[in-house]
Amino acid sequence: MIRAIGFDADDTLWHNEDIFDRAHQRYRALLAGYHPAEEVDRALFATEMRNLPLYGYGVKGFMLSTVETAIELTRGAITALEIRAILALGQEMLAHPVGLLPGAAEIVPALARDHRLLLITKGDLHHQERKIAASGLAGHFSAIEILSEKDDAAYARVLHRHGVAPAEFAMVGNSLKSDILPVLALGGAGVHIPYHLTWQHEHVAEAPHTHARFRRAENLAGLPALLAAL
Amino acid sequence: MIRAIGFDADDTLWHNEDIFDRAHQRYRALLAGYHPAEEVDRALFATEMRNLPLYGYGVKGFMLSTVETAIELTRGAITALEIRAILALGQEMLAHPVGLLPGAAEIVPALARDHRLLLITKGDLHHQERKIAASGLAGHFSAIEILSEKDDAAYARVLHRHGVAPAEFAMVGNSLKSDILPVLALGGAGVHIPYHLTWQHEHVAEAPHTHARFRRAENLAGLPALLAAL
Repeated sequence: MIRAIGFDADDTLWHNEDIFDRAHQRYRALLAGYHPAEEVDRALFATEMRNLPLYGYGVKGFMLSTVETAIELTRGAITALEIRAILALGQEMLAHPVGLLPGAAEIVPALARDHRLLLITKGDLHHQERKIAASGLAGHFSAIEILSEKDDAAYARVLHRHGVAPAEFAMVGNSLKSDILPVLALGGAGVHIPYHLTWQHEHVAEAPHTHARFRRAENLAGLPALLAAL
Repeated sequence: MIRAIGFDADDTLWHNEDIFDRAHQRYRALLAGYHPAEEVDRALFATEMRNLPLYGYGVKGFMLSTVETAIELTRGAITALEIRAILALGQEMLAHPVGLLPGAAEIVPALARDHRLLLITKGDLHHQERKIAASGLAGHFSAIEILSEKDDAAYARVLHRHGVAPAEFAMVGNSLKSDILPVLALGGAGVHIPYHLTWQHEHVAEAPHTHARFRRAENLAGLPALLAAL
């Protein structure tokens, strides 16, 4: 019997990765005179992974890595005005309005009537808080947890803090790595709702299809029936 | 009778503003061929304030503002390699070891014996967590709250969440604006321990010297006696 439901935010309740995807496209176009797209992607991802321990997740770290990569890839030939255009890409990402995923505005209030809802997300504190406020959904959640990493230990702390037993908890999210696998490991349930894009860093080879507490839904509309049957 | 004590972190338990100060000095030196120091400082602060709603507090936002300001001040004449040097300044700030302020390593464990301690800081989630872990003090705090803003409403939420009555709460910090005034407004006590440097954004014209629940200490060593008399 599921009493508490955790929701991931980015790409679960609102669009996020498509905003990164469009920024990537424009970044490749800005550097197209220097390098082919695949090389730009490879170099940027390498910079992001190198900087992750220092920057953590989020758009500001992404912005810093795009500037660094552009200087590196052009061996210093990129102009300051091109770098300004790269910064502007990131500022547009930060200012982008929150676009709820289909069903979010109906399913979240409906589930809040019979369940305790926790919003559990990771990344940049300031940007996540702004998106949560702009989503209009904050009032349906009994707690909002913005974490720097979503691993087993982080979920264990959150569930303990809110007095939620893992057996009564289901986590809903688009990332097998960050939303599903750590919660299954603690004895909770995981409902995976894939987004049409996944950041390379979040890729997991195999979904845990044989796990008794794992479910997959096509979209948020399928969630209430799936949770009732858990 | 004070039962719970809130500690600010940056410039209260460990050095922070002096790291920014040294970065400012090196930033001015990098731009010295273009503009005098005062103009660089003025332009950078204006960029930071303009970007604050988008970036929030922390070193990553500072780094992005230093790059943007350098492009603006040089009208695009700055080279990519000079921008790389500016990025390196910020990366060094993020990698800087945590330097505890005198007394922190003794006073925090001593106060933890008879009080509930909350660490209440603002800024970048990932960077603050890394500094808290590196400080070696985390284990003495019953809760760690990293906020995007430290205002009346944020303190009210934190005290409510932890079941702390404002009358039994004292906040200790170096910023009148972020640590003291909001807590006094809620009916708590505030102990101001000035740091030798204050970021311009945190400046407050007047300390609330006539407030019955306001105290000032020269350093952390003076804290236990002050708190016992509150």
